[in-house]
Amino acid sequence: MIVILRENPDPRQLENLTRWLKSMNLEIHVSEGFHQTVLGLVGDTTRVDMDLIKALDIVEDVKRIQDPYKNANRKFHPLDTVVDISGVKIGGGNFQLIAGPCSVESEEQITCIARAVKEAGATMLRGGSFKPRTSPYAFQGLRDKGLKMLIAAGKAVQMPVVSEIMDISQLDLFADIDVIQVGARNMQNFELLKQLGKTTKPVLLKRGFASTVQELLMSAEYIMSGGNPNVILCERGIRTFETATRNTLDLSAVPVLRNATHLPVIVDPSHATGTARLVPPMALAAVAAGCDGLIVEVHNDPPHALCDGPQSLLPQTFAELAKKAAKVRAALRD
Amino acid sequence: MIVILRENPDPRQLENLTRWLKSMNLEIHVSEGFHQTVLGLVGDTTRVDMDLIKALDIVEDVKRIQDPYKNANRKFHPLDTVVDISGVKIGGGNFQLIAGPCSVESEEQITCIARAVKEAGATMLRGGSFKPRTSPYAFQGLRDKGLKMLIAAGKAVQMPVVSEIMDISQLDLFADIDVIQVGARNMQNFELLKQLGKTTKPVLLKRGFASTVQELLMSAEYIMSGGNPNVILCERGIRTFETATRNTLDLSAVPVLRNATHLPVIVDPSHATGTARLVPPMALAAVAAGCDGLIVEVHNDPPHALCDGPQSLLPQTFAELAKKAAKVRAALRD
Amino acid sequence: MIVILRENPDPRQLENLTRWLKSMNLEIHVSEGFHQTVLGLVGDTTRVDMDLIKALDIVEDVKRIQDPYKNANRKFHPLDTVVDISGVKIGGGNFQLIAGPCSVESEEQITCIARAVKEAGATMLRGGSFKPRTSPYAFQGLRDKGLKMLIAAGKAVQMPVVSEIMDISQLDLFADIDVIQVGARNMQNFELLKQLGKTTKPVLLKRGFASTVQELLMSAEYIMSGGNPNVILCERGIRTFETATRNTLDLSAVPVLRNATHLPVIVDPSHATGTARLVPPMALAAVAAGCDGLIVEVHNDPPHALCDGPQSLLPQTFAELAKKAAKVRAALRD
Amino acid sequence: MIVILRENPDPRQLENLTRWLKSMNLEIHVSEGFHQTVLGLVGDTTRVDMDLIKALDIVEDVKRIQDPYKNANRKFHPLDTVVDISGVKIGGGNFQLIAGPCSVESEEQITCIARAVKEAGATMLRGGSFKPRTSPYAFQGLRDKGLKMLIAAGKAVQMPVVSEIMDISQLDLFADIDVIQVGARNMQNFELLKQLGKTTKPVLLKRGFASTVQELLMSAEYIMSGGNPNVILCERGIRTFETATRNTLDLSAVPVLRNATHLPVIVDPSHATGTARLVPPMALAAVAAGCDGLIVEVHNDPPHALCDGPQSLLPQTFAELAKKAAKVRAALRD
Repeated sequence: MIVILRENPDPRQLENLTRWLKSMNLEIHVSEGFHQTVLGLVGDTTRVDMDLIKALDIVEDVKRIQDPYKNANRKFHPLDTVVDISGVKIGGGNFQLIAGPCSVESEEQITCIARAVKEAGATMLRGGSFKPRTSPYAFQGLRDKGLKMLIAAGKAVQMPVVSEIMDISQLDLFADIDVIQVGARNMQNFELLKQLGKTTKPVLLKRGFASTVQELLMSAEYIMSGGNPNVILCERGIRTFETATRNTLDLSAVPVLRNATHLPVIVDPSHATGTARLVPPMALAAVAAGCDGLIVEVHNDPPHALCDGPQSLLPQTFAELAKKAAKVRAALRD
Repeated sequence: MIVILRENPDPRQLENLTRWLKSMNLEIHVSEGFHQTVLGLVGDTTRVDMDLIKALDIVEDVKRIQDPYKNANRKFHPLDTVVDISGVKIGGGNFQLIAGPCSVESEEQITCIARAVKEAGATMLRGGSFKPRTSPYAFQGLRDKGLKMLIAAGKAVQMPVVSEIMDISQLDLFADIDVIQVGARNMQNFELLKQLGKTTKPVLLKRGFASTVQELLMSAEYIMSGGNPNVILCERGIRTFETATRNTLDLSAVPVLRNATHLPVIVDPSHATGTARLVPPMALAAVAAGCDGLIVEVHNDPPHALCDGPQSLLPQTFAELAKKAAKVRAALRD
Repeated sequence: MIVILRENPDPRQLENLTRWLKSMNLEIHVSEGFHQTVLGLVGDTTRVDMDLIKALDIVEDVKRIQDPYKNANRKFHPLDTVVDISGVKIGGGNFQLIAGPCSVESEEQITCIARAVKEAGATMLRGGSFKPRTSPYAFQGLRDKGLKMLIAAGKAVQMPVVSEIMDISQLDLFADIDVIQVGARNMQNFELLKQLGKTTKPVLLKRGFASTVQELLMSAEYIMSGGNPNVILCERGIRTFETATRNTLDLSAVPVLRNATHLPVIVDPSHATGTARLVPPMALAAVAAGCDGLIVEVHNDPPHALCDGPQSLLPQTFAELAKKAAKVRAALRD
Repeated sequence: MIVILRENPDPRQLENLTRWLKSMNLEIHVSEGFHQTVLGLVGDTTRVDMDLIKALDIVEDVKRIQDPYKNANRKFHPLDTVVDISGVKIGGGNFQLIAGPCSVESEEQITCIARAVKEAGATMLRGGSFKPRTSPYAFQGLRDKGLKMLIAAGKAVQMPVVSEIMDISQLDLFADIDVIQVGARNMQNFELLKQLGKTTKPVLLKRGFASTVQELLMSAEYIMSGGNPNVILCERGIRTFETATRNTLDLSAVPVLRNATHLPVIVDPSHATGTARLVPPMALAAVAAGCDGLIVEVHNDPPHALCDGPQSLLPQTFAELAKKAAKVRAALRD
């Protein structure tokens, strides 16, 4: 339920209202917009007398919100959320390019790629150390050693770093990781989400490959209701009957999400398509669809990458993509 | 199987080769490109001695093509196909905007909308007269009367017209329709495709909502193998578990198709999303993905449209979309 | 909307009621059950005064039916429909086994298989003459010659025959075919359904591989609203992300359909699974789920079948399946 | 790769062979069947000289296994695995009925239901204490208190208990739980699977609602390669476009799995269908498909259940189902 207040509400009336609402065990989220203030009420609103509240001078309107998500809901928080990652902002018009290899393979590899992507236009560095592999016999990642190499590379090129966490027991190792990524297979690992909700570290939440947009928002809600507002959503393709691509990139999720939530929305065209040749057109399509950023796999030697080589771009290709993306964004702004 | 000839092949050797191939009951499709000529062989190539052919002076290479489609295959026909619709070309760099209402409802309605979309930048007019309705109790279209109104409106604004055929028995009524549309539910109506293959009328072939890209190409193959090369493919969303949109627009089909086939590929963001608000961002995303055109539903009074009102754009919105689409295309060209 | 009449309604009151309803342009379907008579009203019921009708002595209750299907709806027609095919009944407790090859390949083949399946326990013979092939280069069926061979084989073993029609132009050829099958790809070929609605020939309507149960019922509604009540529904697997089977057999469609409609429901485990080894267990599962029959592909020489060999059962295997199916049915009855 | 040994292999030759294989860093899994012994080789078998091994007297055949799963593979372990749960066996012809409420709600509720299901024919008791809820605002389960109540109820009726674990940090609390369940959303929580592989506690592994059968087997492989052979697989419905049921129960997974793996396979018709009315027919269909057991939700007061009420059966209905299931199994055995 939301209470929309008229401009410049009388302070005493407002205090009375908030006190009364709190007495009914409701949490109040205040969202101050340009022309109005919205009080988002979270909790059991069934006994709230909407007409009574509407009658107050300071109240413009009261609406029941059917959506099961509140904190993540744009109706509760009309303005775009801007997540600040050590000075690099994403959301609310701020577009970011995150790039790097699927896995951290060695100090040399990650540093080399870090330099290449920075030069090509990336603003954040990604690299996996805990790899979710379908097979127990596949390369599982360099784990904490890999994280250290990633952090060092990020410092060397002065870019924030993003890496995927697989289990809550690993949280301490992520202290110097700027953005913690929750992978598609962990989107409904509720215990993990609850724990991440207790930190304020930015979380990059990937949509499950068979999760609905609403389920993605409910997982964001898990994190936010724990107290962590810094959630970035990521569309990365869903599972369908089509086998020509690794997943089916659902770009309509971008405008659907931007309408439903105030959180930033980025796109991963690499895991979505599974093929390097398809990454640039789909990345540009994502930009045209209105996303707040891209996360792209880049490798200096794709045929020998330890995982996901076929979908990794050469630094040169990534540089061309970055330029085109900027042009498309400019075309949309006018 | 394809035979790639060296530049400037000796005419007599070429004649001997083609005579020999024909004697084995093979059809030969000659495709002359910039630097090479490709002979596409259609038929039972199992007995062809590839080494023997490779040994010829005029032959550069011989390759077995695994793809079950030949006529539609870019390997057989490396250059883009340009379909000419009464002077309006689509494909090979030529981009077209097709717009109009879901249904022709009256002479006044279709003429009014035709004028509006022409002014807004459309180059072809769409309008349905035979509507595929899931329910027998829903409006089925004005049928042949509607086709006549559409043809008249197209003449009035000097735009070619596109309309959907539901059954082969209706073919005569489509004599003055410039492009015959085969709807998603008829993509595997093989008898209909065979008959359309016997004409030379351009066919707009929509992807079935649960058909793979390969099945779409095989349906194109049905039409082409009948002798009709004028096929335009259309991605319009596939059926998935996500319910936030009417279908899931599979934009990766655009680069996948443009790599596999030489036929033009357009996108229908209206039926894909089912919601007017989502049509502009997805249309722009389709343009950024590299499509050859868009087919968009436009209505002057969506709340009272006889079908698909919720996904129809007002002419004004369509005009803005047309401008932005041109900008995005310009951004990609540089 | 349905009007439920009390037992033994006064004839004069009933006549007045039906006359009044017809004056409002409504069709009335009378369905006499064991303890009550139900009047199913089809048409625009928005102006009908439900309270006025409920007030009549003869009326027990009036309910608006939300379901978009009426003729096919069990609420309109509470008793099971029994379709009579030249004396062979299906539905309402009558279980039938339909078997035969995917395609009619020759007189010898179809006659040989007809004898084998009859002996093994089949009660109806299937065989395709018009084959829906994804590729135009694949065997398309023996067409009208094949239908003649099928009819002859059916006569020889005294079993009704089922065959698939691809296009309405073929209808005359099906005069002596006992059950006309509409394939999955034609489930929404609305023109075909409308024409089949004008006959009284039993129609076997297969669920589209990406159609919902409700869409299947709406397609049945197309046929029934044309005047043909003899519709048999068939679940044959739906398209999903799983590739271990050709389709995913959705057996829950059986109890879902039996609850929603009064029409008989059978299952095709052959096209669903695509693999002979999986056909017997899934056929038995279908019987346990409560279906009214099975349609199974049987061939005397599967490795050399002209189509769908991998999913065809040898007559011997089919005979064992028929025995087990009878046992499972007996186990359910007690 | 597997090495199939002739009957009664000479011991010395066998010792030489196994020593040589181990020297190449391969793990050897010995599987003694009725007529042959199979050595399953796990590791990098690329350098193994198959012809050399085939030449040995004691060797009947050597085959490369393409399947990425080894431990779970029936080719490595031809005989059915029987999992022994405190004397209750499942698999290899042993069929078990697991029943109980979705959640443990109180001591009274779980004890009451435990008694009812035991009397009705269940052989194991289920009850959730850590509930995976899509919404953070929904009932999350009684957690460790609930586990204690479940264990007590199980002791009271002398039935082993099954309960779902959500995170590895909870493992100690499950010391007295007989079977640890890994839910659908955790099927690819690889860190959790690795840890469960280090115990010998039986694990009930549910198929992810968008996971392929092969991915299910790879997740089983994670557990088994850790050293825990006691894995029971469970099909519980997959996510598709059909909305008439909560999920689409994929019963063909039963024969597909029984052919691919030696592990027991059970079915959950409750979460699959989401509707109590559909549970009995689908449960019987699962039995007819050849599963090793069922896990069914039963509640004494479904309208007031704290979760999944609509799909819960009353004890009476469950009792009838248990009887019918026994009859169907008997019908299959003859």
